[in-house]
Amino acid sequence: MSCNAAELLPLLGGTANASAAASYLCDRFTTVTYAVDNTYLLFSAYLVFAMQLGFAMLCAGSVRAKNTMNIMLTNVLDAAAGSLSYYLFGFALAFGAPSNGFVGRHFFGLKNIPESTDSGTFDYSFFLYQWAFAIAAAGITSGSIAERTQFVAYLIYSTFLTGFVYPIVSHWFWSVDGWASPTNTDNLLFGSGVIDFAGSGVVHMVGGVAGLWGAFIEGPRIGRFDRSGRSVVLRGHSASLVVLGTFLLWFGWYGFNPGSFLTILKAYGSPGGYYGQWSGVGRTAVTTTLAGSTAALTTLFGKRLLAGHWNVIDVCNGLLGGFAAITAGCSVVEPWAAIVCGFVAAWVLIGLNKLAEKVKYDDPLEAAQLHAGCGAWGLLFTGLFASKHYVGEVYGLDRPYGLFMGGGGRLLAAQVIQILVVFGWVTATMAPLFLILKKLKLLRISSEDETAGMDMTRHGGFAYAYHDEDDPSQRPSFMMRKIEPTSTTPSPQNGGRNV
Amino acid sequence: MSCNAAELLPLLGGTANASAAASYLCDRFTTVTYAVDNTYLLFSAYLVFAMQLGFAMLCAGSVRAKNTMNIMLTNVLDAAAGSLSYYLFGFALAFGAPSNGFVGRHFFGLKNIPESTDSGTFDYSFFLYQWAFAIAAAGITSGSIAERTQFVAYLIYSTFLTGFVYPIVSHWFWSVDGWASPTNTDNLLFGSGVIDFAGSGVVHMVGGVAGLWGAFIEGPRIGRFDRSGRSVVLRGHSASLVVLGTFLLWFGWYGFNPGSFLTILKAYGSPGGYYGQWSGVGRTAVTTTLAGSTAALTTLFGKRLLAGHWNVIDVCNGLLGGFAAITAGCSVVEPWAAIVCGFVAAWVLIGLNKLAEKVKYDDPLEAAQLHAGCGAWGLLFTGLFASKHYVGEVYGLDRPYGLFMGGGGRLLAAQVIQILVVFGWVTATMAPLFLILKKLKLLRISSEDETAGMDMTRHGGFAYAYHDEDDPSQRPSFMMRKIEPTSTTPSPQNGGRNV
Amino acid sequence: MSCNAAELLPLLGGTANASAAASYLCDRFTTVTYAVDNTYLLFSAYLVFAMQLGFAMLCAGSVRAKNTMNIMLTNVLDAAAGSLSYYLFGFALAFGAPSNGFVGRHFFGLKNIPESTDSGTFDYSFFLYQWAFAIAAAGITSGSIAERTQFVAYLIYSTFLTGFVYPIVSHWFWSVDGWASPTNTDNLLFGSGVIDFAGSGVVHMVGGVAGLWGAFIEGPRIGRFDRSGRSVVLRGHSASLVVLGTFLLWFGWYGFNPGSFLTILKAYGSPGGYYGQWSGVGRTAVTTTLAGSTAALTTLFGKRLLAGHWNVIDVCNGLLGGFAAITAGCSVVEPWAAIVCGFVAAWVLIGLNKLAEKVKYDDPLEAAQLHAGCGAWGLLFTGLFASKHYVGEVYGLDRPYGLFMGGGGRLLAAQVIQILVVFGWVTATMAPLFLILKKLKLLRISSEDETAGMDMTRHGGFAYAYHDEDDPSQRPSFMMRKIEPTSTTPSPQNGGRNV
Repeated sequence: MSCNAAELLPLLGGTANASAAASYLCDRFTTVTYAVDNTYLLFSAYLVFAMQLGFAMLCAGSVRAKNTMNIMLTNVLDAAAGSLSYYLFGFALAFGAPSNGFVGRHFFGLKNIPESTDSGTFDYSFFLYQWAFAIAAAGITSGSIAERTQFVAYLIYSTFLTGFVYPIVSHWFWSVDGWASPTNTDNLLFGSGVIDFAGSGVVHMVGGVAGLWGAFIEGPRIGRFDRSGRSVVLRGHSASLVVLGTFLLWFGWYGFNPGSFLTILKAYGSPGGYYGQWSGVGRTAVTTTLAGSTAALTTLFGKRLLAGHWNVIDVCNGLLGGFAAITAGCSVVEPWAAIVCGFVAAWVLIGLNKLAEKVKYDDPLEAAQLHAGCGAWGLLFTGLFASKHYVGEVYGLDRPYGLFMGGGGRLLAAQVIQILVVFGWVTATMAPLFLILKKLKLLRISSEDETAGMDMTRHGGFAYAYHDEDDPSQRPSFMMRKIEPTSTTPSPQNGGRNV
Repeated sequence: MSCNAAELLPLLGGTANASAAASYLCDRFTTVTYAVDNTYLLFSAYLVFAMQLGFAMLCAGSVRAKNTMNIMLTNVLDAAAGSLSYYLFGFALAFGAPSNGFVGRHFFGLKNIPESTDSGTFDYSFFLYQWAFAIAAAGITSGSIAERTQFVAYLIYSTFLTGFVYPIVSHWFWSVDGWASPTNTDNLLFGSGVIDFAGSGVVHMVGGVAGLWGAFIEGPRIGRFDRSGRSVVLRGHSASLVVLGTFLLWFGWYGFNPGSFLTILKAYGSPGGYYGQWSGVGRTAVTTTLAGSTAALTTLFGKRLLAGHWNVIDVCNGLLGGFAAITAGCSVVEPWAAIVCGFVAAWVLIGLNKLAEKVKYDDPLEAAQLHAGCGAWGLLFTGLFASKHYVGEVYGLDRPYGLFMGGGGRLLAAQVIQILVVFGWVTATMAPLFLILKKLKLLRISSEDETAGMDMTRHGGFAYAYHDEDDPSQRPSFMMRKIEPTSTTPSPQNGGRNV
Repeated sequence: MSCNAAELLPLLGGTANASAAASYLCDRFTTVTYAVDNTYLLFSAYLVFAMQLGFAMLCAGSVRAKNTMNIMLTNVLDAAAGSLSYYLFGFALAFGAPSNGFVGRHFFGLKNIPESTDSGTFDYSFFLYQWAFAIAAAGITSGSIAERTQFVAYLIYSTFLTGFVYPIVSHWFWSVDGWASPTNTDNLLFGSGVIDFAGSGVVHMVGGVAGLWGAFIEGPRIGRFDRSGRSVVLRGHSASLVVLGTFLLWFGWYGFNPGSFLTILKAYGSPGGYYGQWSGVGRTAVTTTLAGSTAALTTLFGKRLLAGHWNVIDVCNGLLGGFAAITAGCSVVEPWAAIVCGFVAAWVLIGLNKLAEKVKYDDPLEAAQLHAGCGAWGLLFTGLFASKHYVGEVYGLDRPYGLFMGGGGRLLAAQVIQILVVFGWVTATMAPLFLILKKLKLLRISSEDETAGMDMTRHGGFAYAYHDEDDPSQRPSFMMRKIEPTSTTPSPQNGGRNV
């Protein structure tokens, strides 16, 4: 919200004292505005961070018990390694203004944040919010390549993705200098710029396409397709963790989507009315809820028809597909359109999963299908259904809007460009990386390790011990078997936490 | 907080410019107020939503492992199906003003929210907040009928409860037109209206009484009472999930109870003082904490005396009973009274659990006892202990208050009316529904399904696989047994997520 | 933020009306400020409360399955019993102003909160926030003495710690009257006062030192060191719960550290600038993130070198060690310094764990090493790296600051005093308590109970039942064995929740 002393001055009488009075009052409104907006942004950032916990639990529950320690470690490290690389480089590459349209070049190591006038409106809370987004992208990819990737490969790609690939994309579409950004003040792509409000493309497609190449180059897990080529389900080990993770992601998405407004204290039109950015924020929470819910219900009945049972795991994935899709347009579509978005997203996911089976693509979390597939649908959806009224409020008046809403094809064209460019950029950077890692024999684990599970061979032991370790006679046969440790592998007895 | 330009105008000099200045300033205060209040309400709504995750984990941990997929699916669907039905009908029936005292009739599909002047003070954040409450009611009921109910029956009752039964009740007690609402401007029941601040009756009794009839009509689970009629405990499969769920519910209750103020930027008395709605909000968080904590401690020692051990599951249920009870009066009682509330709630729950055993009523989550029983106690408690001072602040001066506080019996009478009416309405709508479903053989699963567990027969497989599925020799005998799938049942190998 | 009518008055013309106008406007700014600051503080308190759930899950996952019910019950009771004792005594002893430098003496049972002028700036939200801190301290201690302590001993020490030992410490360092508080207006220790912003010493050292004495006096768990004295790892039963708990603690730490500003609506310098307390809050979230992340990465590579595998449990503990360390100085150091803090914290933890093994000290959660050890490092770190600029903003101009930053040794001296005093006070109060309990045979459980696990013998049964209880033939041998209940012990069949 702006309070302008120059506006207020004549109203108060125009004298020297009046000038001081106007400043006095407006300064206080400004302070209020910063405090409220930062509070809003910080708590939104905390919610987005909670999604990392959601990813960790979703991933853990979706893999077999023998790889639980491995996948959870990658999720913890996404956050931890991402903190450092995004602090040192990532944020600067993404938002280092002023810059050219392709890459930012200020604020390395948060230098001059927030005092510098160059930093425009950036404060630590903005950094924290963007960091939470950056680590989400890497988390998506880890799902695609789960259960067969060397830990070292994971460390390398994750740092590269969070510190370089992702920040560049976010610069293009979200920074004020980005060549396809809708906030670019010099030149708008097709007079519109891309509308990817909270990142169906910038976050979900980036993570999903990276995962696609990783999983494709590694090939399927042992046993995922039998000798005759039939698909064999390798069930995750805990549906409870999957549901826990899904609900945490839902919870965190209220920071991801509504939070992407970045501020909340802003009137639409002149101040004093009932209607303002808070309404847009609330509406975004509602469209998000409706899209996910519709996708969940569509998946429930769709899979009941196709597979003959009511499956909570599928419903969770459908729900997340709906969220990934609505993320691009959540702030600029009507609630009823969000229902359309979710309905289609569910079928996109079902279709892509069928296709993945046919081409023997193995993605333990369905991450490429879900995040890249539904994310791409979300970008198209925005080009079709963005409302004139809401585009005007959020991005500015007289912009192109959705094709089906009478807004012509320019926004849709921009969205298509984004899909192609994101796919191309991530392919051009991540596919070579995975191929090089493969060449260097750093990508895939040995088949012995894969059969035994990485937890036993690389991570110090099995994730669970429901029996009493003190009494070997009570140890059930199915645990701790298969442990004929390879030379360098510590035995589980010595490999625990305190050694 | 109100800033009134007409009040400010003469103070600034009364000229034309002064009039504009007053408007200028007051408009900005109004904008600040909307932004702060909506921020407060939205984040409260997110917390209430987190309770759905809490319910899911609590329910999952409280049932046997073989029905985990089933119960978690119902919890996910409460939220997802509830989104659509509350968006389409529920919100309109509950808050569609102007209306009569019995049912709302505007805002179907959120039409005219928030722009319409009819919508008064309703914005999307208000819808989201109320939606999160609506899905909580259905979540309560699912606990009562767990482990023996057909999934189709679940879908039907859940939609009916969230879309019709619950919204009508919330209209009566919470909308400005409701016949028993304390905010009704035409006519207050007994000059008071019912004080059910955050829904001990509107939410907890509704969910609990619905569960009572469902569980009663279905009868107990197989094996719950042995041949000689003795009670046999069918232990839930994971105490960790129960504790996780309980703590998440506690966390979310800070959105449920303090959030029910809906706004926070409001001075009590003239602006500028230290004391305002924020104090009321904080006090409500404190009374909530104290009531739950006291109930937990009372249950700990009470059950130690009665059963001879310290039981964390019982303590969790006692805690939740204390929360369900304080929910009605949390904003209008002193902290010390909250301790009384929790103490009695614990004994109400212990007593009703004894009674349930005696009459062979089987409720796997103790949901009817906890939510309906402790909820009813909470309504009475409010009629007894509501303080004059706080009722005046929250509802208006010169209202009846608690009998024991010297406020006479009119408030208590209104509370008794609510208990009777809620019990009657939910009975009149839900009991016939469950009976019809029973007639149509859509209510209870077959005894084969019940013995084998619904996860295997209906939901695509067991929720857990801690062993290595690739190697059948390592599969422990107790899993995957009993699977002589009935004709249409998919085998677990084919029944997984990707088929 | 302050709006001063006396300042505004002459600006508006100095007449009687102008005086009223100035009051009118300033009163509204005051109301806004209270509402925003209380919103900020309340939601921060909710986040801190979520840490209690984090502790519960971390502890549960870190102990053996047979003691899961026991440890979770202690975590629930920390919160519940802490509510009552902190309400009745603790808050008064800590913050009951005006008082002497050693102990508070007002506000027992929240009397006169918030109306009293004595209460200064205390409202219910402040109480709630401080309560959430108090219960965290007891939660730390419960980890150290896990798996071998009688439940009665637990109840006694927990009440004593939360209601007396901890409040006294927080009075010394955090209340305006505290003898070592940096907000003491009469006399600053070494002209500085101790800077323990969010409680590396007040919370983490207190909990950790208490745990140190408890674990030392009880001695190691049976089997923790074998006959030849070699360390044997007694692995926790669920890495998933450990990761869940760690991420929840990370999430909650955003309430713990940034929240400790207590307010957010405050300009640094004159109002109207871009820079204010919101920047400090955001920077604190960033330093917290960086310290924890660096510690996690350092632990990852450090333990890889030392133990030969990548261990997620160790990484989680390292992360938490980084958080415990940065907690003291989080608001007054540069982001780069937080990286130093986390790096050293990781090695402090690794070193202390080595030392603990050498001296046969057994702490199942590494709680003393982590919270007392890294907490003490954090206090020293603050004395070394506190920046002049940020100390000036947060505590006042012209204060001593970090030795390495050119601020001299006075702050460091104060920090050393705090370490010594906290260690001394907790030792003087808690060690005798544990010794007395030992004398009275109330401290350690019998070796039979310890071998069988406390869940079976004292808490009504095993925490998990993944098998089907109805069919004894399917019951795996490792469960439900060993149950030769001692005389008063209920059998697991009768010991369930509904008896």
